[in-house]
Amino acid sequence: MSNPELLPLVEPAEAVAPCCPPLTERPFTAEEAETAARMFKALGDPIRLRLFSAVASHEGGEACVCDISDVGVSQPTVSHHLKKLKDAGLLTSERRGTWVYYRVEPSVLAAMGKLLTVAPAAV
Amino acid sequence: MSNPELLPLVEPAEAVAPCCPPLTERPFTAEEAETAARMFKALGDPIRLRLFSAVASHEGGEACVCDISDVGVSQPTVSHHLKKLKDAGLLTSERRGTWVYYRVEPSVLAAMGKLLTVAPAAV
Repeated sequence: MSNPELLPLVEPAEAVAPCCPPLTERPFTAEEAETAARMFKALGDPIRLRLFSAVASHEGGEACVCDISDVGVSQPTVSHHLKKLKDAGLLTSERRGTWVYYRVEPSVLAAMGKLLTVAPAAV
Repeated sequence: MSNPELLPLVEPAEAVAPCCPPLTERPFTAEEAETAARMFKALGDPIRLRLFSAVASHEGGEACVCDISDVGVSQPTVSHHLKKLKDAGLLTSERRGTWVYYRVEPSVLAAMGKLLTVAPAAV
């Protein structure tokens, strides 16, 4: 999909370690729960979820703040929520000229998806 | 897996409609974000996540409160968190004799997993 000449890539600032087995596999330890809850909490707000989905579904999996501000809140509020998503390891960002570009961290999304896998033994 | 003679089944109180396309497919609407954020928020707390995982991974996918209280908080706090998970549609419950039994709602778990699917176009 990606063509570096057409679409500059944003490198993740740091790799986020995939955390935790599927929720249905065994009871989480306190440490696993801390890590996973941080990610779920970041998506547990409607505005953040809309921003995250706007970035995630944008062409090439990255978006400028200018592309995704249409969620009915002020620009500072948008920035605040994007920072929270970034702090939770769900987005990475890079400033290019005037704008900051956000990119979804696919490994984290995959890890969260894995958490929610329904194990055959549990259904 | 389940044998009704050995393991009574808990019927879901009501079917929870699967919500929303994958987060990577298109920007969420405000309504979709409200629904999905409610579920993510419910899992955005370490104690709730441990309780949820304890129920989800318990034999037969259901557990008595007596099985899952080992998370370092008081019984009323456990009950409070279980109620929040139930209100979010992630657990169903049924009283049988002395105890309340909790069961994971598999359709909701599957719907949340689908939200986090990484669409090929986005990576």
